[in-house]
This record gives sequence, structure tokens and C-alpha cells, in this order.
Amino acid sequence: MESAAHRENEPNWTAAEKKVARRAFDKAFERNCAAIYAETRQMLKNTSAPTEIWRVQEYLYEQRRIIDRIYDYRYSMLLFVFARLLRDGWLTEVDLAGLHSDKIASIKAIASV
Amino acid sequence: MESAAHRENEPNWTAAEKKVARRAFDKAFERNCAAIYAETRQMLKNTSAPTEIWRVQEYLYEQRRIIDRIYDYRYSMLLFVFARLLRDGWLTEVDLAGLHSDKIASIKAIASV
Repeated sequence: MESAAHRENEPNWTAAEKKVARRAFDKAFERNCAAIYAETRQMLKNTSAPTEIWRVQEYLYEQRRIIDRIYDYRYSMLLFVFARLLRDGWLTEVDLAGLHSDKIASIKAIASV
Repeated sequence: MESAAHRENEPNWTAAEKKVARRAFDKAFERNCAAIYAETRQMLKNTSAPTEIWRVQEYLYEQRRIIDRIYDYRYSMLLFVFARLLRDGWLTEVDLAGLHSDKIASIKAIASV
């Protein structure tokens, strides 16, 4: 009962919206990984001291923690996730086209906080 | 008293031996890091998929754990550490030249177990 009540407060996601959401989510993730990948290459390019590898290790470990925290694909979380990704530049409004205008408004409102 | 009794069973390290030990330890560490560094570069070279960066992250995290476990510069541990480094190929007997022959024999004996 409690979980049904809980769900009532959540936005509904139509099948079409779920498709848009999944695509946007994956695209943001890919872009984010690509940036981390490029930064890692750059770090390795800028040094030849073997022990500098631990700076790379610490960088990647920290990025992993951030990624694991942000990318949560639960429909109950998705507006917050998209708001964060929009704010951080991994998504643009174009990627969200196809979501109900109420959702886009919520995402933008959360992102601007 | 207990710690003095404990110390009696430990090998003594002369000042000259400590110098040799420190140099060998640092050299092994540097070689080990260089190998990890080279492997990381190779992993990045062999792929262009951004999400492959997490294989690199896991590799480095695992290597960090191994490194942190092995490289313990306490004189009470050093024979075991050198035995391990000898066995893993990060040190050769040449690097240990200058240590008392008893110590070298112990290191080789432990390494062969």
C-alpha cells in the first residue's frame, strides 16, 4: 500500500518517454566517459614519471565514485539525474525533446537551483 | 621489554646496508610503477570506446592495492618484501649487493618457497 501511495506522487513515464529518457541517459554517460577518457590520456601525455600513474589512479577512482553516485536510472530519480546532467553539461535540452513539457520544466527548475 | 626481546630476533641493519636497502626498495618501486604505467598506456592505445576507461580504472585500483600491500619499508619486514620483489622480478640479486650474505641467503630462501 505504501509503495502504491508513494508511486502516486511520481511522474508517469509513457513508453515513448522511457525511450527518450534511456537514450538521453546513455548519451550523457557516454559523453561523460569520453571526457574522463580524454583527460586520462592527457594526464599520461603530460608526464613520463612512472609514479605519476598514481595521480591518474586517484583521478579515475574519484571519477568512478562521482559516476556511480550520479547515474541512477530509477524513474523516481530521473528528473533529478537529468537536472544534474543538464547543469553539468552532459545533456542539452535537445536530448530531452520528447519528454512531457511538465517534466522538462521540472528538470530545468531543479537544474537552476 | 617485550619489544626489546622482539627486536633481538630481527636482523640488524648497518648504516651501509640501510642505504643499499633503500636504493633497492626505491628501484623496485620505480620499475613496478613503470610497468603499470606502460600497461595503462597500452590499454588506452588498444581501445577507443570511452566506457573502456573503467577497465583501466579497475586495473589501476587493483594495482594500487597490491602495491600498498607489498611495499612495506619496515626493517622487520624487509627480508620478506625483498623476497617477494625478487620473485616477481622487480629486483635482481645485483640490486641487493652490499647486504650481508646471511640476509641475501634468507631473501633467496624465502623467495624460493
